[in-house]
Order: sequence, then structure tokens, then C-alpha cells
Amino acid sequence: MPMFDAIKPDINLGIALFDALSRATRVGRGIVRDSYGDGEQAAHDIVRAAAQSLDLEISIDAIGNLSMTLPGTDRTAPGILMGSHLDSVPQGGNYDGAAGVVAGLCALAGLRYAGVVPPCDLAVLAIRAEESAWFDIPYLGSAGAFGLLDPKCLSVTRSDNGRSLESTLTARGFDPQAIREGRRLLDPADIRAYLELHIEQGPTLVARNLPAAVVSGLRGCQRFRNARCIGQYGHSGGVARADRHDAVAATVAFLHHMERIWLREEAAGSDLVLTAGELYTDPKLHGPSKIAGETRFVLDLRSLHEATMTTVAGEAQAEAARVSDAYRVHMDLGPRTDSPAAAMDGRLRAKLLTLLDQPFEMPSGAGHDAAVFAKLGIPTAMIFVRNEHDSHNPQEAMSMEDFAVATQALTRVLLEFPL
Amino acid sequence: MPMFDAIKPDINLGIALFDALSRATRVGRGIVRDSYGDGEQAAHDIVRAAAQSLDLEISIDAIGNLSMTLPGTDRTAPGILMGSHLDSVPQGGNYDGAAGVVAGLCALAGLRYAGVVPPCDLAVLAIRAEESAWFDIPYLGSAGAFGLLDPKCLSVTRSDNGRSLESTLTARGFDPQAIREGRRLLDPADIRAYLELHIEQGPTLVARNLPAAVVSGLRGCQRFRNARCIGQYGHSGGVARADRHDAVAATVAFLHHMERIWLREEAAGSDLVLTAGELYTDPKLHGPSKIAGETRFVLDLRSLHEATMTTVAGEAQAEAARVSDAYRVHMDLGPRTDSPAAAMDGRLRAKLLTLLDQPFEMPSGAGHDAAVFAKLGIPTAMIFVRNEHDSHNPQEAMSMEDFAVATQALTRVLLEFPL
Repeated sequence: MPMFDAIKPDINLGIALFDALSRATRVGRGIVRDSYGDGEQAAHDIVRAAAQSLDLEISIDAIGNLSMTLPGTDRTAPGILMGSHLDSVPQGGNYDGAAGVVAGLCALAGLRYAGVVPPCDLAVLAIRAEESAWFDIPYLGSAGAFGLLDPKCLSVTRSDNGRSLESTLTARGFDPQAIREGRRLLDPADIRAYLELHIEQGPTLVARNLPAAVVSGLRGCQRFRNARCIGQYGHSGGVARADRHDAVAATVAFLHHMERIWLREEAAGSDLVLTAGELYTDPKLHGPSKIAGETRFVLDLRSLHEATMTTVAGEAQAEAARVSDAYRVHMDLGPRTDSPAAAMDGRLRAKLLTLLDQPFEMPSGAGHDAAVFAKLGIPTAMIFVRNEHDSHNPQEAMSMEDFAVATQALTRVLLEFPL
Repeated sequence: MPMFDAIKPDINLGIALFDALSRATRVGRGIVRDSYGDGEQAAHDIVRAAAQSLDLEISIDAIGNLSMTLPGTDRTAPGILMGSHLDSVPQGGNYDGAAGVVAGLCALAGLRYAGVVPPCDLAVLAIRAEESAWFDIPYLGSAGAFGLLDPKCLSVTRSDNGRSLESTLTARGFDPQAIREGRRLLDPADIRAYLELHIEQGPTLVARNLPAAVVSGLRGCQRFRNARCIGQYGHSGGVARADRHDAVAATVAFLHHMERIWLREEAAGSDLVLTAGELYTDPKLHGPSKIAGETRFVLDLRSLHEATMTTVAGEAQAEAARVSDAYRVHMDLGPRTDSPAAAMDGRLRAKLLTLLDQPFEMPSGAGHDAAVFAKLGIPTAMIFVRNEHDSHNPQEAMSMEDFAVATQALTRVLLEFPL
């Protein structure tokens, strides 16, 4: 076996694959790899052909996830999976999802060329349908692989064409019965570790001039999607402050208080982000000389730590009550929807950090298929690659140099496992 | 001449007139007395008939304002005018505007019945087209009476039927040439005082359980109608606070600061109201898991004192600049539109206060025809009558008891003038 240092992932393969994916799935300015549609299938066909030319073992499960395996010495030992999804949002970019699959193939290609036979199987999993823009089902492909989907999801319809998941799967030649039965297509006991490379979806690495980062964890989310503040409309000139039921003033006071809570948590070193991304008075009833009688808004709390979110969500409820009294309005945050945080494996994180020239760790604010693996107790890690202009848009921009830095770390973890 | 104390306005006439107005101009739930339309004309016909039965002198000026005069001993001396408008907003209430005209007739009826011949002419002016809901021209009838309108306003079209003011005036038998020439139909030198009774358009008197108030002044307005905050959209989970360009967070910080300025002015005893009645993220681009890249809002400042508004508007500009830096956004308050405050006459205010059992003074947040008279240097005063449910809606509710209290004060001022 050659020295590990000499083994490099095949970045040229990556360049060729990204180019092929872009040419096959670009529609106008953006990328369209629709979940279980022609775009996603084209991407699966491209990576499968590459895997075949590397002489990897190919298998496709009942719901279309594509596994590409470099066999190890011990075929019965739990293997290491690398993976991500191949679908994109409508008019997305070329890298969100695909980068993780391509990176895995580049790593296995490097091992193949070096003649490495690993102690256990090393596989790349091209996961189906991660983007809920098409079917509003979280982690459809990976949760489905573990038999974790509610069978009711088969009647969920695709947002663009209205066809059910069931008929979509059937039309594509897959087997909805696997979901109906909750069949396990993948056994957690067979997976020693799951590694996912993904472009960063925010500006942190660009701002810090770093090529890559180890992901410390996936933030959970507690979201008040339908918060409302009901006040009373009135003439802007004719109602004294003490007589107002001003929904905007109350909402401003509420959100200002929430920002102060954020600053407090930040000062205490807690992980938290807090966003009101939608906020609006009623366009049918508001007016330039009217006190607003209603606002609607979203409050989105995210943290690596459930306890932080739960504390802050409780404080939000208390503040809504205080503001309701103080401003003579009724503020109702409405139902809360939670998605739990997912921890990344401590040993894998530590190892990956040693493999970066500029070690940097950061949380992931968005969810990823890695969350499904982590929740099942599988040691899981993620690497972020610097990317400009965020994700989910045609301007996604990852340089091949940065991709090489992150893919090199991914490859080294495979070789140095168990840690 | 009888003792002043024995002279009472004829409130029964008021009850009959409000009833006749309601029956003639109610369309569905609300009142429709459209400016220069059939509804306003019906109201003019009703009050003119009442004035004729009181044997008042009737005259109608070139643009349709109706003057109803109780002649005084000295017909050449400047007279006292009472007045308000007879038009309403679409689906308005029965009292906004009409109450001031009806009160004047009740007062003159009381004097007629008592056989009073005043020292100067006392007249009621039923003013045309005060509600800019129809023609978007401030104080069309009263400004037109003084030859103050820009002749270009003749091409302004009515919001519901698209007909120009010029063709509307002609169709109604009036003379647009008067506006084109800037002809004075009313000479300020002929007016000793202008008195306007009006329903309160806010909840102050209801909240304080008072039947009526003297108006301390008409608040001016400095308004930023098209304020914007431009940030940058981003993933709500993936962007740290320090890297955000969060338009909502910046707007909240701005409006919170403005509220603190309001509290400071309030503590200092300044007259000020401050309203952001429209505030919204972009419904096409915002999302529950996106940091908002843009907000639009209105900032409406009102005060009796120009200096207060100008100071606070300047502070708003400074705060917009500070927030732009602190939140890495571009906040632009946009052009400011000003309407000046109008002072009420000190001696008339003081006199009216002595005529209320429960003396109370408050500013008017909205504009009224009284502003036009005050600006011309005519001693001007207003009386507000308690009214439930604000104005400009079918639920306006003024009790005849409260109307009698205010109309009695109006009548007494006529009798005790010069003060």
C-alpha cells in the first residue's frame, strides 16, 4: 500500500463530472434536477457511468438511491458511506448536493488509481429527493432508505406537476411498496460512518477567507411560522400613544427584545440564530395615515442545542404576553414547528480538523441528509466547502481549488479510519 | 334681546337633519356623499331647504359652496362663519363633515326662534369636496373658495369614475373658470372668525368619558411615504449575525429608536405622534427560512409644532444612516411630504373652554377645512364631539346629547363675540 500522503483524490474527474452535470441539467440560467424527475435522473445516469468506469459495484435500492462501492478486504465489516443528494431546487446551482457525491467518487478514484484495497467497503451514496421544493417531505431519499417515512407521504404531490409520490415512483420504475411497508433498504448496523461534503450555504467561509470547514453540528429549528399581532386600526394623527392598539409598534418591541436575547446568548457563547424573515401589515387594510391593526410574521430560532432553543422560545412566549399587555394588542405566536438539532461525531470532527491546513469549525444552519444518519446513532461528519452567493440559486460558486482541499480531507479520513 | 343663557340651539332640527341625510345618502351599510356627485348634492339640497324654512339668506358660489346667512345689524361688518363639509368618504358615516353644518343651522335656528338680531352677519358654510377620496386635492371646496387652487387641478380625475374635476363641475352647473382664474369667491377680510364643529376621529373623548373638546390646533404631518431598507437575502440558519444584511432587523432597530424619541418628546411635553402604518417584506421573495433582503415602510410624524416634526425627521435621517452602518444595509427614507400645522386662535380656544362644563383641549391629528381659514390669518377654532369607532366608516356614532353640548358652546360663542 502506498503512503497515505501520496494518495490524492482525482479532482480532474470532479471537474469533468461537474461539467457534465451542468450541461445535462441546466435550464436557462439555473440548474433543474427535479426530485424523481428527468433532471435528477440525468444526474444519476452521469455519476453511475463514472462509477462503472472506475469498476465500482453499483446497486440501486427500491426507491432509487444509487450506491457505488469500492469493495474492502472484509466484505462483512460495516462500511464507510460518503454521500449527498443529486437533486436541486428549481433554478438552483450546480453544487448543492452534487458536490458531496462527486467528492466521494473523486476519493474512490484516487484510491483505485493507487491500488488501495481498504479494510472495509467504502461506498458513495447518491441520495434521492433531498430538496423539499418538489415533494414537501423532509429527507425523502435518506429517510426512505432507512424505512423511516410515514406511508401517508405517498400521497404527497409534487409542487410543480401535482403528481403523487406514489405515481411518480412507479412511473420511474421504483417501488412505493417499500415505503408503504417501512422496509429498511439500508441497515444502520452496516454503516461504520457517514461522511457528507457540501457547499456552505452562507457567507461565513467567504468572509473569513477559508476554503473549507468542519461542521460542528446541524442546527435544529424551532419556528413560529404563523405569528400574528392583532391591534386596532386608527387614524395616525388622531390617536394618542396611550390609546393606541398599534400592531407594528408592538411587533417592533417584540422583535427588538428578541434581538437583545440573541445578543445575550451570543455574549454567553451559546449557539443561536434568530430570524424574522417575513413581516407584513395587511396590504388590503393598511395605509400611510393609519395605525396598523394587524401584523403577521415568522420567528425562526436555530441552535445546535435544543435547550437554547427551548429557553429562547419560552422567552418569546413570555415577551409576546408582555407586549400584548403593554401595547394593548393580542400577539399570538401560533403553533411551533420543531426540527431537532443533529450532533456530529466528536472523533470524526477532531480528525477532520487535523486534516485542514486552516482548521475551522462552524455549525450548519440548514438540514442535510447527514441529520438522518446522525439520528440513527451512526458516527456522522460533514465538511463545508466555501461557496459564493449562498445556495439554491444559479450563482452558486465553488472553486475547484477549495473542492480539492475538502475532498483531500475526506479521502484522508477514509484511509486513516478507524481513527 | 333675551338673556344669552336662555338661548338654546335647536337640537330637534339637528335630529331631523341627520335622519334626512342618512335616509337620502345611505348606500347599503354606509353613507356615500360623493364629492360633486349625487350624494353630496342630496345633502346640499336637504340643508338648503332647512335654511330656507329658517328664512336664512341663501347663496351658492361658483364652485358650489352653499352659504346660509342670518343677517346682522351691520351688513358691512365682517361676519362670523360656521361650517364644515357635506361630502363623505365612500361607505363613510353620517357625521364626518355634516355635523359641523348641521350644528351651524341648529345654532342659527335657536337665534331665530329667540328673535336675536346679531351685530354682524352669522353664516353657515356647507363646503364642497373636503374628502380627498374622490378628487385627490386637499381642501378642494374651501381652498377653491379663496382662489387658492392650482388651475392644473381641473384635470384631476375622480377616483371612482375617472371624470375630470372640470367636466364634473360643468355637469353640475358650476364654473371651472373660477378655479382657472384663481378667483376669490370669499374674501378673508369679510370673515371675523371661522368656527368648525366636527366629530373626533379618534378614541380620546370616548376613553376620557368627555362629550366634547376644544381643538388646540391641527397637527401638521411630515411623512416618509416610501421608506426602504435594502439588505441581502440569506439562509436563516446559515448566516451568523455579524455576516447578515438583515432588512427586518435593521428596520426593527430603526423603529424602536424612533419610539424612544417619541417617549423622550412625550416626557418633555411636546406634541407628537409617530406611526409606521405600513411595513412589509417582499411577498415574492421573502420566506420563513430566509433572512429578509428588503423592507418597505411608511414613517408618519405629526405635531402641532413644525419645529418638533423637523427635529424628529432629522433624527430619523440620522438613525437611518446609523442603522445602515450597524446592520450592513442601505436604509433610504425617500422623499418627505409635508403638510404644515395650523394654529387655532388663542382667544377663541380660551372662550370655548369656559363654555364646556368639563373643559378639555386636544389636538386634531387630521386636517380639516379650518386649516385653510387659519392659514389665511382668520381667527379659527374647532370643537370636537365624542364619537365612537373613529370616522370614515359606517360605524361612526355621535350621540345627540354630546352634539347638544358642543352646539351649545358654538351658539354661545356667537352670542358673546367679540370676546
